[in-house]
Amino acid sequence: METEGTRARLIAATSALLEAQWYHATGLNQILQESAAPKGSLYHHFPGGKEELAAEAVSVAGQAITDDLDIIAEKGVDFGTALSVLTSVFRERLQTSDFQKGCPLATVALEMAATSDPLQEACRDTYHAWQERIERSLIASYGWNPARASAIALFVLSAVEGALLLCRVERSTRPLEQVVEELRLLVEGDTKAL
Amino acid sequence: METEGTRARLIAATSALLEAQWYHATGLNQILQESAAPKGSLYHHFPGGKEELAAEAVSVAGQAITDDLDIIAEKGVDFGTALSVLTSVFRERLQTSDFQKGCPLATVALEMAATSDPLQEACRDTYHAWQERIERSLIASYGWNPARASAIALFVLSAVEGALLLCRVERSTRPLEQVVEELRLLVEGDTKAL
Repeated sequence: METEGTRARLIAATSALLEAQWYHATGLNQILQESAAPKGSLYHHFPGGKEELAAEAVSVAGQAITDDLDIIAEKGVDFGTALSVLTSVFRERLQTSDFQKGCPLATVALEMAATSDPLQEACRDTYHAWQERIERSLIASYGWNPARASAIALFVLSAVEGALLLCRVERSTRPLEQVVEELRLLVEGDTKAL
Repeated sequence: METEGTRARLIAATSALLEAQWYHATGLNQILQESAAPKGSLYHHFPGGKEELAAEAVSVAGQAITDDLDIIAEKGVDFGTALSVLTSVFRERLQTSDFQKGCPLATVALEMAATSDPLQEACRDTYHAWQERIERSLIASYGWNPARASAIALFVLSAVEGALLLCRVERSTRPLEQVVEELRLLVEGDTKAL
């Protein structure tokens, strides 16, 4: 039976396909083939079909990065170190994929957020989770008040996401490195000013 | 004959289609239909076919925003005002399209930059043009040195692009407004520190 194995394989295959191409190019037959899953299994596990499966794949891919951020937080490292770890995760994604991968959510988000509620919600909840981890790191590292930490966390997330887009366009990791350096200066400056 | 009219209509139709959907969903027949162009005209004007036409459409859409930035610069307004004008252009795009449109390049950039050289170059050159205008505005407004203005211009562009992505995901203009407010504080703070 191993239904959980099939489910996980369906999610993993969809996640990889959504990153390498895009939602509308990803057909159900291709997902079944890549995941070596029996034909009936997709609607068994995901009654909502491709849209439900894709939303789950986005959530799982996003959760991997949320988990990275949680591990960093548990180690009690400061915000600057957390930023370095996050940067190296994304830099590796860019470089090992020859700039086909950056943020695992962004392409699907731009393609589908306006028209698919399940995909919009999956992307939104993942970005919220990342922003919330960054916010907590700022509070834990510097004792910032929650309102300020929340505003800067949104700013950090925006700057990193924009930099990842520019990295893919430049086919270079330079925009990410430069932007992270500015974020570091900004947060250090703000901390000194408190 | 009116070949220039046909060419312009092909570009306008492609530009609108690339924003409302995405590159791979945009078929040549749909472009011809939307632009009311004769069948032979597409390869006459764009021997490189859909890829060349799409690259030109991206450049034309990007140039409209570059032109907005140039008009702002000619008026001699300061960086803060320039940022407000740019924000209102993007906010209007988001709101009037029900969050289907934001940055006219970002979706195509994420979809195609790794695999299409003409589209990668068109996106890269447009982002460079925007960054260069922001850089000039920082130099003209505050007398910053070019290296610092260049670094902050990349940072501004990244933050705005990331915010536009988050606006589409949130279906709200709030991320853009918050991020622009932080950029304003950052640039004012940097200027005072000089």
